[in-house]
Amino acid sequence: MASTSPIEKDQPNTSEGSVTVLGRALSSVITAGREILARRRPNLTAAEGSTQALVDLCKELIEHRGEASGLALAQEITEAYLELSAEARLEFFQRLASDFDIDREALLEATERYRDDPDYDKLQAITRATEAPRQKLFRRINMAPGGTRTLVALRGELLQLLRQHPELKPVDSDLKHLFIQWFNKGFLELRNIDWASPAVVLEKLIDYEAVHEINGWEDLRGRLREDRRCFAFFHPAMGNDPLVFVEVALVDDLPDAIAPLIDREREIMEPGKFNTVVFYSISNCHPGLAGVSFGNFLIKNVVEVLKKEIEGLKTFVTLSPVPGFRRWLNKADLSELVDEALIDKVRAPVNRTVMEAEVQAALTRLCAHYLVREKSGELAKDPVARFHLGNGARLHRLHWGADLTPKGLEQSGSIMVNYLYDLDKIEINHEEYFDEGKISAAKSVLRQLPQD
Amino acid sequence: MASTSPIEKDQPNTSEGSVTVLGRALSSVITAGREILARRRPNLTAAEGSTQALVDLCKELIEHRGEASGLALAQEITEAYLELSAEARLEFFQRLASDFDIDREALLEATERYRDDPDYDKLQAITRATEAPRQKLFRRINMAPGGTRTLVALRGELLQLLRQHPELKPVDSDLKHLFIQWFNKGFLELRNIDWASPAVVLEKLIDYEAVHEINGWEDLRGRLREDRRCFAFFHPAMGNDPLVFVEVALVDDLPDAIAPLIDREREIMEPGKFNTVVFYSISNCHPGLAGVSFGNFLIKNVVEVLKKEIEGLKTFVTLSPVPGFRRWLNKADLSELVDEALIDKVRAPVNRTVMEAEVQAALTRLCAHYLVREKSGELAKDPVARFHLGNGARLHRLHWGADLTPKGLEQSGSIMVNYLYDLDKIEINHEEYFDEGKISAAKSVLRQLPQD
Amino acid sequence: MASTSPIEKDQPNTSEGSVTVLGRALSSVITAGREILARRRPNLTAAEGSTQALVDLCKELIEHRGEASGLALAQEITEAYLELSAEARLEFFQRLASDFDIDREALLEATERYRDDPDYDKLQAITRATEAPRQKLFRRINMAPGGTRTLVALRGELLQLLRQHPELKPVDSDLKHLFIQWFNKGFLELRNIDWASPAVVLEKLIDYEAVHEINGWEDLRGRLREDRRCFAFFHPAMGNDPLVFVEVALVDDLPDAIAPLIDREREIMEPGKFNTVVFYSISNCHPGLAGVSFGNFLIKNVVEVLKKEIEGLKTFVTLSPVPGFRRWLNKADLSELVDEALIDKVRAPVNRTVMEAEVQAALTRLCAHYLVREKSGELAKDPVARFHLGNGARLHRLHWGADLTPKGLEQSGSIMVNYLYDLDKIEINHEEYFDEGKISAAKSVLRQLPQD
Amino acid sequence: MASTSPIEKDQPNTSEGSVTVLGRALSSVITAGREILARRRPNLTAAEGSTQALVDLCKELIEHRGEASGLALAQEITEAYLELSAEARLEFFQRLASDFDIDREALLEATERYRDDPDYDKLQAITRATEAPRQKLFRRINMAPGGTRTLVALRGELLQLLRQHPELKPVDSDLKHLFIQWFNKGFLELRNIDWASPAVVLEKLIDYEAVHEINGWEDLRGRLREDRRCFAFFHPAMGNDPLVFVEVALVDDLPDAIAPLIDREREIMEPGKFNTVVFYSISNCHPGLAGVSFGNFLIKNVVEVLKKEIEGLKTFVTLSPVPGFRRWLNKADLSELVDEALIDKVRAPVNRTVMEAEVQAALTRLCAHYLVREKSGELAKDPVARFHLGNGARLHRLHWGADLTPKGLEQSGSIMVNYLYDLDKIEINHEEYFDEGKISAAKSVLRQLPQD
Repeated sequence: MASTSPIEKDQPNTSEGSVTVLGRALSSVITAGREILARRRPNLTAAEGSTQALVDLCKELIEHRGEASGLALAQEITEAYLELSAEARLEFFQRLASDFDIDREALLEATERYRDDPDYDKLQAITRATEAPRQKLFRRINMAPGGTRTLVALRGELLQLLRQHPELKPVDSDLKHLFIQWFNKGFLELRNIDWASPAVVLEKLIDYEAVHEINGWEDLRGRLREDRRCFAFFHPAMGNDPLVFVEVALVDDLPDAIAPLIDREREIMEPGKFNTVVFYSISNCHPGLAGVSFGNFLIKNVVEVLKKEIEGLKTFVTLSPVPGFRRWLNKADLSELVDEALIDKVRAPVNRTVMEAEVQAALTRLCAHYLVREKSGELAKDPVARFHLGNGARLHRLHWGADLTPKGLEQSGSIMVNYLYDLDKIEINHEEYFDEGKISAAKSVLRQLPQD
Repeated sequence: MASTSPIEKDQPNTSEGSVTVLGRALSSVITAGREILARRRPNLTAAEGSTQALVDLCKELIEHRGEASGLALAQEITEAYLELSAEARLEFFQRLASDFDIDREALLEATERYRDDPDYDKLQAITRATEAPRQKLFRRINMAPGGTRTLVALRGELLQLLRQHPELKPVDSDLKHLFIQWFNKGFLELRNIDWASPAVVLEKLIDYEAVHEINGWEDLRGRLREDRRCFAFFHPAMGNDPLVFVEVALVDDLPDAIAPLIDREREIMEPGKFNTVVFYSISNCHPGLAGVSFGNFLIKNVVEVLKKEIEGLKTFVTLSPVPGFRRWLNKADLSELVDEALIDKVRAPVNRTVMEAEVQAALTRLCAHYLVREKSGELAKDPVARFHLGNGARLHRLHWGADLTPKGLEQSGSIMVNYLYDLDKIEINHEEYFDEGKISAAKSVLRQLPQD
Repeated sequence: MASTSPIEKDQPNTSEGSVTVLGRALSSVITAGREILARRRPNLTAAEGSTQALVDLCKELIEHRGEASGLALAQEITEAYLELSAEARLEFFQRLASDFDIDREALLEATERYRDDPDYDKLQAITRATEAPRQKLFRRINMAPGGTRTLVALRGELLQLLRQHPELKPVDSDLKHLFIQWFNKGFLELRNIDWASPAVVLEKLIDYEAVHEINGWEDLRGRLREDRRCFAFFHPAMGNDPLVFVEVALVDDLPDAIAPLIDREREIMEPGKFNTVVFYSISNCHPGLAGVSFGNFLIKNVVEVLKKEIEGLKTFVTLSPVPGFRRWLNKADLSELVDEALIDKVRAPVNRTVMEAEVQAALTRLCAHYLVREKSGELAKDPVARFHLGNGARLHRLHWGADLTPKGLEQSGSIMVNYLYDLDKIEINHEEYFDEGKISAAKSVLRQLPQD
Repeated sequence: MASTSPIEKDQPNTSEGSVTVLGRALSSVITAGREILARRRPNLTAAEGSTQALVDLCKELIEHRGEASGLALAQEITEAYLELSAEARLEFFQRLASDFDIDREALLEATERYRDDPDYDKLQAITRATEAPRQKLFRRINMAPGGTRTLVALRGELLQLLRQHPELKPVDSDLKHLFIQWFNKGFLELRNIDWASPAVVLEKLIDYEAVHEINGWEDLRGRLREDRRCFAFFHPAMGNDPLVFVEVALVDDLPDAIAPLIDREREIMEPGKFNTVVFYSISNCHPGLAGVSFGNFLIKNVVEVLKKEIEGLKTFVTLSPVPGFRRWLNKADLSELVDEALIDKVRAPVNRTVMEAEVQAALTRLCAHYLVREKSGELAKDPVARFHLGNGARLHRLHWGADLTPKGLEQSGSIMVNYLYDLDKIEINHEEYFDEGKISAAKSVLRQLPQD
């Protein structure tokens, strides 16, 4: 997918005349820088696709002083990185971990000196010694056009290797540390996305939608009609590439199934009738931004924006899957929770045909139990529940038969859930959840729990 | 001047429909947050203007978890800070230095543990221990609307107190560290400023122009005619408030005096005749961004932008003052440099009447000497020379009688200087200057030097 | 004032990237056209500033077929026109009236033919014969960049000559006919003007304000603060040059004097307290658009925009002068209206010193009489009353001592008036005014009338 | 296709904050107007879908004076028109022709009076009498939001009925007369369309492409890559709905077939290599704008825009079908033009299999003959030839086998043609074509002509 390539041509934001100047300017400063580099190393051919060549460029960049040629170097590095094979990238990450790490001896010396005389200069020396040289490297790469995107993509790949290569953890840690600074919430830009948005933005929605796939442009158009909304956070250094987006349905009743919400042929409701806002899909666009989270903040902002825009809105809920439910179901000891006789039945694959009422009821009860009582450490076991409960939402309703797609049947046994966002309560819920492990749930949900 | 107040109403950038949404959204999230705060502390009146009240808010913010109420708290802090008197602010800075400093014992313990077992976790513990809690505080303040501006203004005031209150240095250091991350060059936006720019931007030029004062709107208009340009860097978190701007004249010959360049009544040259670009004024807008410099990068970008826009440009120079010249002249031992008989004459105040040719020549020679040979450490003694030579420019020409304003006569003895920006040479010049202390100067300047 | 020149460089609207393309494109098509023209008439020097030369160009343009060279010709014409002296322009207008008039013989023949056989083709022949060739000329001039502006400026000058040169009336008539098509209300663009608007727009307000002069940029800024609004209509062919604008004050009570409204030092009211909207100044920007009126439509739009934006607005009024009052007062037979003894006193120049209560009351009564009962034909005698009553507004209140400027004292005897815009009533008022000559006035005003 | 509905919700141009205000304002003025109307005709239900009801509304609008209620009426009319069946629309057009026609008696009287005394007032009376009341009706409809679009769509339908209903011609004539004023070239806006354009614009390209169908969004994206361009004219009253657009390919050689140009999988050429611009598709978007042509002007503008943007462009050509060729071929007397023996063969349907070289050559010669020598009146017989030759282009090259689509084979016998746009020559060509019927053709084409 060309569109997700991290350093594709920097999208000129054609609607903002004066702003585009920068792109052009930078690229010519880089051109100047390239000529300077070329004069300095007449015999050097461009980096030959080897890890060593890339590492050499990185070392040059760290020690470098010229600004224009520094930008040119930074761009050479992003290009060379993209040309590496998967194996070479792993090797490169390992070199980042080893060759660009802190100097332990220097750190130890600095701490000794501080112990002898704990003044401010000695402290600063420690601070400097704890910062690995690769942080400087990343900061310099970040200055080149597309630099931020490259680094985000790089961390995305790094994260996939982390489990098998724990030695790369410090590299990840340094990137995350920088991202937290750079993606400070104060720098985010909330944009409304609709059918008048640039195609270059819209195609990203199609690429990134993670929850309920968008099948092409007609499907997208259906999700951007007058009774739907879409909001996203953008960051100035990422151009038209969103960080996270949420798809919203405006309806007149609590939704109990996903299909009607994304049905292209649905009837469009009159605007005056909307009373309920449904967040039916939230997609993080960049795996490389894991741990630098925006989804929570996005939902809160959208609640407020919609409250102001549309009169009469009363309820703000999600319609969410329970992705860990059947995995748990198949492993758990259900003997205390359900009749022996039903155990095999609730574990049987759910399909689109009719299910016995008794089994259906048992499955729903088990799901309520799973969401309210099963924990992973102090927190909810289900990952989606963890996100929304962590945001301070309340578990509001369970709907059997709400998602009949293969994935919905397989993971959630067809069940979907509403989490309720009540801005007056989310902070208290949030704190009680993290401090006491208390899961906020509606009475009707609590009544569904299997009796102790 | 209302316009420089750091948290004036966040300027809605009316030309970008979707973007303004954020401002509104944030402010309503904050409203929600305020209500939450109010419920929690029913008996608390708003911070009463005392340092202690502000310090308490800061402590609350650091320990705080709720997002909406956190934003509300951050805004309370910026408001409370602005209401403090000058004395109370000093006290507040001192509390930031003392109450929000690192825990030395914890740091020492962390270093011990690392010495015993230098693994990654122990290292991270040191890193955490070296980060003063006020860094977290500043990051959280930064999330509120106007937060970045408040912090920049705060550091601006802090810097003025630093000489007399060296104990505040660590606070400054932490702010600078954060600013370097937040104001990464990759996030800057270069904008062309002209008479079609919003008044809210233009009035900042009038406020901030530091070199050759802009006397009201008519004067500003004169500086934005077809034969003049203005460029500035903006940062997304600072809205319409520029970081640094440069004023540019397009002319057909090397300029030897400032008055014709800023003369409102000048004749406008035909566009086809331009061959020389003069940077006649560079203004940093925020003292609080000292040490996070952009001027150098701005000039290089503008060189490239103009090269592309206008054919036939050959020379890129400044027309700069020599602000330290007469201060040096009055203190220096001139006996080796000039005839005994002239010493008093060159030291006499320069005024707008005619000067003897001999004195004039001597003064110019002495200025060349001052610029090329007088150092402060390894670097040029004159602050403006230090900036341009550090950027890699070359000292190109001296002009006697170029600045007849009182300030120009008093500081520079009427002399102005062209520094030449030749992008092909600036990196080499830059390196030779920093590595060898070599000052790049044109032959014609070198010939003016008093003989050894 | 350079800014009002009709064909100043077409203001590039820098905020709309793709749109500016047109300007450039057109100008290069014109360049191509110029070269074509030059090849065709190698011996012709540019029009030499004579009326004859300009008339020749106009004839060439009418007969012309090439598109690019036609645009070039159109631009030559606008340039040649601008170089003419006042006398030469009058002569040019007279040539437009005589040389570019309809062919009467042809028209008579067409009508004969139609009488014999009134079919559609014969009718079309009449239509064609009634259209003077100068209409085609104007349409072609209109295609060149700045063409519309030139024609608007041209009619502005023409109108000043009309009384002494009634033979020019047909020229005016043709221009007005075209303007009514081109400035169709469907093409107008309502813009909000504030301190974030481009300076190039703001300076037009200073230039055009016709009612209460704006004294420079600081004064303008005062009129664009949070408690004030400004709205204008723009037309695509006139770029950043407004057609008409209205200045609005948001207040909490019916205003009874102009000075507090435009006082720069006034206190800014809290937004929540606004309940009254005051239209205190409406300025038509182009005399050449006389008779193609927008002011009425602008006020109605602004009423609706503000109603939506701000809650709690109840009253929409003007604060208007009575410019014809004292002129009438000095000529009218007052014997039936006021005590003999007071006649001289009410006619005495009003100044800022105290006036006897009796005289003041008499003057106010006479003003009410003048506004409600004195007619010019079927319509109100006072020009401002004619405008607002014609819009369907109601005469709501008179305020003695409301305008103490020299002009206010001289023309209106210090009196100002509120006209009330009640959207529910304006159409009925409008019709009763035009059909029955009925002037809508509040009871309190009617009570002030001298008894019959 | 909802997107082509003429009065779909007025597209808010979200990128221009202040401009959208107008839409909202107008719609609320209309709301006010609707209430006024409702009060006046309490017993009237909304127009019941009958022609008579619509005609009544039209008569009301013509006589109407209130502005707000006039807008409301205008909108009722557009809505009522859209609800009419095809038959009812025809009937409505006929009523426009009969009930809203000029008053012949009045016209005759006016001409008599003019004959007796040919002064200006009498002339104006004729002018007024020649203007049918429906012109006023159309002008008033045009003021409502979407009014222009409705009228353009209305004329589109009217034109289809004209042949069978010649009595409707005057209605068409009046609309065309108004459109020529409203769509004056000076009001057009040239926009570059690319992948950053709003989806709402892009989908129009898919809808409107008339020459080489665009098969969905992926196909569109292919046509907007770096080696392709698209330009369109827009009119302020038509929002995001283009009037005409041209698709452009940048290549390095004269194109001799259409398939490679629109191949999605083609290789993208390096920008530096472009030397030829191919206009491979020009689409008029609105049948209702027939006779108000922009295509010619669009091409010239694009030539100039591209010349400035890209260095090294030398040739500007079309790649055009010859849509009338085989229709002519099958009817014409070919005996003088080609060997008896070949006549049947050249008339045989062309398909994608190999053709005898002799037949292929004969077919090409016949096509050259058709284009250069066959006339319809004074002008070229082929409609596409008529357009480009009328623009002043030269017939440059014929390519056998250039269009192998069913339509290309059926109409043009697989042949496509380059017309060359040489801005220096187009005006001369244009004039020689219209004055002397001379068809400009390259020597290589002339050599292909069958010998006389």
